[in-house]
Amino acid sequence: MTEAAVPAPVTKVLDAAGTWLPGSMAQVERRLARAAAEPGGPIAEDATATLAAGGKRLRPLLVLLCAGPAAADSAVSAATAVELVHMATLVHDDVLDHAPLRRGRPTVLATSGRPRATATGDLLFSRAFAELAGDGDRVRVNLLTKASVALARGELAQRRDAFDLGVTEESYLERCRLKTAALFECACTIGDGRPTLASFGRRVGLAFQLLDDVLDVAGPPERTGKARGTDLLDGTVTLPLIRARDVDPTLDDLDLRALDAAGADAVCERIVATGAAEEVRAIARGHVEAAKAELDAVDFDPERRRLLDLVADGVVERYA
Amino acid sequence: MTEAAVPAPVTKVLDAAGTWLPGSMAQVERRLARAAAEPGGPIAEDATATLAAGGKRLRPLLVLLCAGPAAADSAVSAATAVELVHMATLVHDDVLDHAPLRRGRPTVLATSGRPRATATGDLLFSRAFAELAGDGDRVRVNLLTKASVALARGELAQRRDAFDLGVTEESYLERCRLKTAALFECACTIGDGRPTLASFGRRVGLAFQLLDDVLDVAGPPERTGKARGTDLLDGTVTLPLIRARDVDPTLDDLDLRALDAAGADAVCERIVATGAAEEVRAIARGHVEAAKAELDAVDFDPERRRLLDLVADGVVERYA
Repeated sequence: MTEAAVPAPVTKVLDAAGTWLPGSMAQVERRLARAAAEPGGPIAEDATATLAAGGKRLRPLLVLLCAGPAAADSAVSAATAVELVHMATLVHDDVLDHAPLRRGRPTVLATSGRPRATATGDLLFSRAFAELAGDGDRVRVNLLTKASVALARGELAQRRDAFDLGVTEESYLERCRLKTAALFECACTIGDGRPTLASFGRRVGLAFQLLDDVLDVAGPPERTGKARGTDLLDGTVTLPLIRARDVDPTLDDLDLRALDAAGADAVCERIVATGAAEEVRAIARGHVEAAKAELDAVDFDPERRRLLDLVADGVVERYA
Repeated sequence: MTEAAVPAPVTKVLDAAGTWLPGSMAQVERRLARAAAEPGGPIAEDATATLAAGGKRLRPLLVLLCAGPAAADSAVSAATAVELVHMATLVHDDVLDHAPLRRGRPTVLATSGRPRATATGDLLFSRAFAELAGDGDRVRVNLLTKASVALARGELAQRRDAFDLGVTEESYLERCRLKTAALFECACTIGDGRPTLASFGRRVGLAFQLLDDVLDVAGPPERTGKARGTDLLDGTVTLPLIRARDVDPTLDDLDLRALDAAGADAVCERIVATGAAEEVRAIARGHVEAAKAELDAVDFDPERRRLLDLVADGVVERYA
């Protein structure tokens, strides 16, 4: 349930839409920096550092792609708003998780303590909705509110299910929908301006999360930049483990609270040995294919269609 | 640095502007309830409970008064937004303070735990800015952002200064400006639509905080609904103690960390005995008088002027 670096799919899509997308993404980046820095003071500094720490910017990319090259400035503000909500959530999650590191860098919690990290998240939330406010469009505000609430509910579900080996596949998938897919869905609908791309966004987001969870179990550390099994160490039970238990019942005796790094790595090995990682990868690929197939029904120009295919494929490729 | 109940000044102003203000305040109340409940689920329930727990609604009252009876629906949304930011901040402060009670009721933290309380505050922040979004007015959004950041900085200052007997009067006043006066200022300027009432709002907010701090030291529990000295027990050094130390140097030996409820009550007695509480009360009254005098320079109809005088006086009276 953590994200890896390497924005390879983003690079590919940026290349493919070189005439307009890199420029718009650069605008989003400037807007993000301004949103964080403008209020001034130490909290704004922390917010700026958080944004500068990077991320794949997949969500704003989706907003811009769904809005298309002719989109107005409002697409840039929507893309900025979606990323700000994402970052705000990460900062508050780190506070709740007592997390010292994210993407290999110290978290705001680690550098500035709980009160400032809480305030930094608050600022990023405020700025997200402030970005949308300039346009006076209540529909977009409501979409982002809905997604924010889903993110929070997903985070709560993850906590509720922590260290619980008995988590069902259904409950895991619902958690993914709330924690990840909802904001991807929001990115697509808020960009396109119609609900048409909701299911596309949801499926791509779900695939993204599934592959992220596979990556945590099966990804080589030299590519993911982190040790395997960090989800296990956090007590987060994901689909590879849920599926693996069907094949290897000795995994039922696992005591997640007793795991150390070496133990987590060994459990990852056992999960991969059952074929569960490959199975979940296939499920994710299935969602990507279904997402792309759903675009057939949408009245898009071929160029936009091609770019959305590319970003959907990119979610799989970042893993391959 | 805590607030007492009893909205007597509000009642008085509502009576005086009976033809329009009670109706607008009722609209704000409905809008608050909708903002909290609309997203649905447990977080929305917590947000709803937080709002239902009450409060004086002084900030939205100021917004409406400064906007005047002819104000459009945008005054109601601004009033709602200001109160939502206030409530969001309280919820997150309670999380950081591990506070079990507020206004005599269990906090969201107490009823629902840290993750849900964090999410509830996030939701209230989001909803505050979402309220402003319908109008597409960036100026109001920026005013509210500025005030939110000030609140957060004030909270950080309070933490930095906690249990520090050596806090200067200057540093205390700056903390009050950030933690309280900034949102009062925002309420007035966002309502009036011009910066004209900034200083009026700031002074009324400062007086409000000063009197609140006097109340904590000198207020009879049967009127404030809480024991004296809760600020002392939280390690919050306020002006009555700062001033009292000038008169009674034995207060320099105080160990705030070692205080219990009986000890805090005894310290309050010693502070009152120095005359410091009365002194701070007079400073607050001075700010109220200065605030009212500043209205002389504002081009207002007499009726609005009268109501603003009344609300400024109310801040003092709630104490008398």
